[in-house]
Amino acid sequence: MLSIDDVQKLITSEIKNTNFIKKPSNLYEPIEYTMEMGGKRVRPLLCLMAVQLFGGDISKAIKPALGLEVFHNFTLLHDDIMDNADVRRNMPTVHKKWNENVGILSGDAMLINAYQYIAQCNNKMLPEILDLFNEVALGVCEGQQYDMDFENRMDVTVDEYLEMIRLKTAILLAGSLKMGALLANADEKDAQLIYDFGINIGIAFQLQDDYLDTFGDQKSFGKKIGGDIIANKKTFLLITTLNNATLEDQTTLKSWIKADNFSEDEKINAVKSIYTKNLVDESSQKLMDKYYNNAMENIAQINGNKVIKSELIHFATKLMKRNN
Amino acid sequence: MLSIDDVQKLITSEIKNTNFIKKPSNLYEPIEYTMEMGGKRVRPLLCLMAVQLFGGDISKAIKPALGLEVFHNFTLLHDDIMDNADVRRNMPTVHKKWNENVGILSGDAMLINAYQYIAQCNNKMLPEILDLFNEVALGVCEGQQYDMDFENRMDVTVDEYLEMIRLKTAILLAGSLKMGALLANADEKDAQLIYDFGINIGIAFQLQDDYLDTFGDQKSFGKKIGGDIIANKKTFLLITTLNNATLEDQTTLKSWIKADNFSEDEKINAVKSIYTKNLVDESSQKLMDKYYNNAMENIAQINGNKVIKSELIHFATKLMKRNN
Repeated sequence: MLSIDDVQKLITSEIKNTNFIKKPSNLYEPIEYTMEMGGKRVRPLLCLMAVQLFGGDISKAIKPALGLEVFHNFTLLHDDIMDNADVRRNMPTVHKKWNENVGILSGDAMLINAYQYIAQCNNKMLPEILDLFNEVALGVCEGQQYDMDFENRMDVTVDEYLEMIRLKTAILLAGSLKMGALLANADEKDAQLIYDFGINIGIAFQLQDDYLDTFGDQKSFGKKIGGDIIANKKTFLLITTLNNATLEDQTTLKSWIKADNFSEDEKINAVKSIYTKNLVDESSQKLMDKYYNNAMENIAQINGNKVIKSELIHFATKLMKRNN
Repeated sequence: MLSIDDVQKLITSEIKNTNFIKKPSNLYEPIEYTMEMGGKRVRPLLCLMAVQLFGGDISKAIKPALGLEVFHNFTLLHDDIMDNADVRRNMPTVHKKWNENVGILSGDAMLINAYQYIAQCNNKMLPEILDLFNEVALGVCEGQQYDMDFENRMDVTVDEYLEMIRLKTAILLAGSLKMGALLANADEKDAQLIYDFGINIGIAFQLQDDYLDTFGDQKSFGKKIGGDIIANKKTFLLITTLNNATLEDQTTLKSWIKADNFSEDEKINAVKSIYTKNLVDESSQKLMDKYYNNAMENIAQINGNKVIKSELIHFATKLMKRNN
């Protein structure tokens, strides 16, 4: 049995020892570049922890687990083109370092490469694993499309927002855990429970991430505070305020959204004070707690290795930067 | 047993009866739009003819065959973004009708959708089918990357060109045929022979297509003659002339390549006359014949249904717009 730290080391060394580069180099170098940017490798980690939770053989699951990481990095690569992002993890994005065509095509190759890793599981399990992966992968695209659609809409509802983050963030985490369960031959009920755990943790994580983007401490959050406010990102905070605040606050908020020339700090402070005045910071934390507690109920019901279970709970809690 | 015309009708009606549209519509409408643009459906056709050639059940192969068509259309969608093409089959391309982000993301969804179709084969065959499809799909990306790399190079060799068209065009045709063979449980030798047939026909087809783009008859070719010359496309004709023509002709050719302001007809006629003077039209046809004849030798050795075999030969010959 490997601890979560040892699994993380295993994944890191596996990626480091993989040679992603073949010919033509303009196709494959961006893949190596993207895979070596780092990151917490959360998805393969969840997959392999789920394998251990249900007593499976981690060595037979490492390749499909890597497929989840390759897939995740593919989504970042293409998302960066769509968002016109110049920098990721302090490095130039692929379409900036090379060009947009290279970004599109090497992303496509990465998606296919992800399937090559997924295919390296036990043949008997392949149909179920592939169906799961296809469903998750398509869901992530749907989530990204909703997110882009929301940019041009002022009438997004909280339910629509929750469905968007379920698709864009939560199902890949949930799918990674469920893939581990399937690879370990867990029974259907447990596979569903670990999936539900992933969905609930994923939604709670995204709500928390959005909350911290506005109300976090810059040092511990790691990103500049207020980025979502500046970009008018349709988060739970903004959507709830647009739907529920006093008419006066809605008008002020909308004028900040439309504003072209403004001091960033002034906008951040003004919007933040509308949020707190309307208590959306509190309702965000309450909703986050609800999903977090649901996740804890899910995992409590699972029949699996107790040590791994508590490691997973600890990891999920840390991931959410909660204080408890 | 279905004739090639009936198989084509079956594919067309299958696509027509498929509802590609789900929510979010900005993700799925471009997929429906792309799939309904038409085309000869060559890849699923080859797949299903190969199924029949080896006595397989066409009804169990139709979904994976459609996956090949969805994949092919995905490549067209993303290639059109990379080539900045405004029109395909007389209709605006997806990134023009919607926008580039929609083009990238709905293309990604199409690639995943292709895998969903591929997955709908007999579970026992899935590992082999998936490996084949992964290899083919990645090869097509490699071919596209080489093609883009060639745009900035003046020293492309004929061997490099042949490898590029093998990847970009031939392996998907070959892979479609081989997929049919695998789905029909053909023996390994026959599966390899039908694959080789596809490679040779694919290379011959691309050589012929390049030849006709310069020397064809506009009416029967269906596209404007001379497009490759105007775009300085690194075809067999251009590459061979750059490598083998007299120094004087090379210099003239290079100055046409560099020219910014010119009459299109003048450039086409000048380059054409350099080609014919250096006999590259003849060597192109000779090389094409070589691959065509190789293909005929491949198929002659195959143990399979004789009627289907002759239909396949007839179809391949027609595809190449040969006169014999």
